[in-house]
Amino acid sequence: MAIRLGILGYGNLARGIECAVKQNDDMELQAVFTRRAPESVKTQSGVPVYGIRDLEGMKEDIDVLMLCGGSATDLPEQTPKYARLFNVVDSFDTHAKIPEHFAKVDASAKEGGKTALISVGWDPGMFSLNRLYANAILRDGKDYTFWGKGVSQGHSDAIRRIPGVKNAKQYTIPVEDALRRVRASENPELTTRQKHTRECFVVAEEGADLKQIENEIKTMPNYFADYDTTVHFISEEELLRDHAGIPHGGFVIRTGKTGMNKEHDHVIEYSLKLDSNPEFTSCVLVAYARAAYRMNSRGSFGCKTVFDVAPADLSPLSPEEMRSHLL
Amino acid sequence: MAIRLGILGYGNLARGIECAVKQNDDMELQAVFTRRAPESVKTQSGVPVYGIRDLEGMKEDIDVLMLCGGSATDLPEQTPKYARLFNVVDSFDTHAKIPEHFAKVDASAKEGGKTALISVGWDPGMFSLNRLYANAILRDGKDYTFWGKGVSQGHSDAIRRIPGVKNAKQYTIPVEDALRRVRASENPELTTRQKHTRECFVVAEEGADLKQIENEIKTMPNYFADYDTTVHFISEEELLRDHAGIPHGGFVIRTGKTGMNKEHDHVIEYSLKLDSNPEFTSCVLVAYARAAYRMNSRGSFGCKTVFDVAPADLSPLSPEEMRSHLL
Repeated sequence: MAIRLGILGYGNLARGIECAVKQNDDMELQAVFTRRAPESVKTQSGVPVYGIRDLEGMKEDIDVLMLCGGSATDLPEQTPKYARLFNVVDSFDTHAKIPEHFAKVDASAKEGGKTALISVGWDPGMFSLNRLYANAILRDGKDYTFWGKGVSQGHSDAIRRIPGVKNAKQYTIPVEDALRRVRASENPELTTRQKHTRECFVVAEEGADLKQIENEIKTMPNYFADYDTTVHFISEEELLRDHAGIPHGGFVIRTGKTGMNKEHDHVIEYSLKLDSNPEFTSCVLVAYARAAYRMNSRGSFGCKTVFDVAPADLSPLSPEEMRSHLL
Repeated sequence: MAIRLGILGYGNLARGIECAVKQNDDMELQAVFTRRAPESVKTQSGVPVYGIRDLEGMKEDIDVLMLCGGSATDLPEQTPKYARLFNVVDSFDTHAKIPEHFAKVDASAKEGGKTALISVGWDPGMFSLNRLYANAILRDGKDYTFWGKGVSQGHSDAIRRIPGVKNAKQYTIPVEDALRRVRASENPELTTRQKHTRECFVVAEEGADLKQIENEIKTMPNYFADYDTTVHFISEEELLRDHAGIPHGGFVIRTGKTGMNKEHDHVIEYSLKLDSNPEFTSCVLVAYARAAYRMNSRGSFGCKTVFDVAPADLSPLSPEEMRSHLL
């Protein structure tokens, strides 16, 4: 019998899950739940939409609930709440608040005899895993994470809030020379500015002061002031035509030394190049839904992260097939 | 208390483990066991050397036994034999025989209430893991593994067996253009020749027929005939000066599509660049020794592979530290 998924919240991530489920024969999407009026939401795949109030009543129909809300306000409330009733997977990505989120979700999931996987995706998620593996192997070394080239929604939103800006898209770009030095085992100490540049494509309101907008972007604290930032003013048509996608990606690199006299250098590198950030993230979430279901079946209750999941639990293949074909 | 390791077989891998243990505070190397006369073996670290007959009597002194023999004849016999008495880690790498090896080791480890981790290293090992993760995420895609640039011991040995050859070193080199096409999501079908080239540095005996040697290398079935091979004749001094190392590495890439109409391409890439193949492999073995010890303490008996090990079990960090610093 297929693993029956439910989705809470219908945005980009949920749409990605609809696609991902189609690629996994052992999965089935049962329902989407929304805080909006259900009749106002139309799913791509035609899966039925229910109001969030119907969720508790459908406990028996859902094996794993995919929580697709945002990390700022939705997940801190939803994950602990629903982890008592369902096996859940979320993509909580506020790094600093993970310990607090973990504790709440853990208590709730244990109370309900459920399995909750938090902070799943690619960062946190696959990038975290690669940091852990590389650190466990190369004990004497240095970690580097670069993001991009990709669209940062947070930075794009920050630009859109500037008066006179109609629309905007921001790309985070790793600095090639920094990557080259890291890969060459130079172990550089890199400042924020030396690791990434930021490129902005901005549609201004008619008559807006472009010099003023550019200056406001480049001097914006936290978001842009510490980076070399380029601003391009373009038309709305150009923005829609050339910058409609949500690509992203990045690099996790650990360099380290071995040998009786630290005479040997090693470089471990993991990288992602993604045409669609939410669709890739969704694929990761769906693989971890499989693990949540299996771990729960084995009585492994409580909150877990990608660190706690044996790789085999992610795969639809049998242990024999894995050993024959992938090992 | 530290995890007490023993080593069976004192070669390059064992020497790498001696180095790796120094970098892991929670590990301690207790003894090396050898089939040779113990007094003829001198360890780098000064750890005591015993004859293989002393091994069974030291059951209580060793938490995990690291099996450092070869896959051809040593490990098929040693791993099943010692998995009944010790938690063990091996680097068995004859891909086609893994299922058979697994079955024997599993029976033996279960009988003894021990935990055995087989086929640990980087391929099989970290490369296998990356194939599994990438396949679980990108369900509709294509796998590529490239090796190198690095020294192939098997190919170097094959050249040394040719009459008139005094010494030789062979490098396996991935074809740049093939890598470029794979990374560009072209999903090429690549022949053996299109993926790797082979470069040989050969020291000939005085008066040997160089043309003849070159021809024998380039036409050698399985080893070289299917590849574009370059042969350089150099002096013994040059070989020792420029080709003394054992570097290796490679790339595991999976490309795949997502979206309602498969409209988005994604590339997952994992790569290693290693100055010392055996020292890096040893670092992986030591991380998995930690996991073998912990899994055994929890009553998880039998044969396991890297697929069965939760990443957290590899790290010396506490779960809280991992979540705070690596997630």
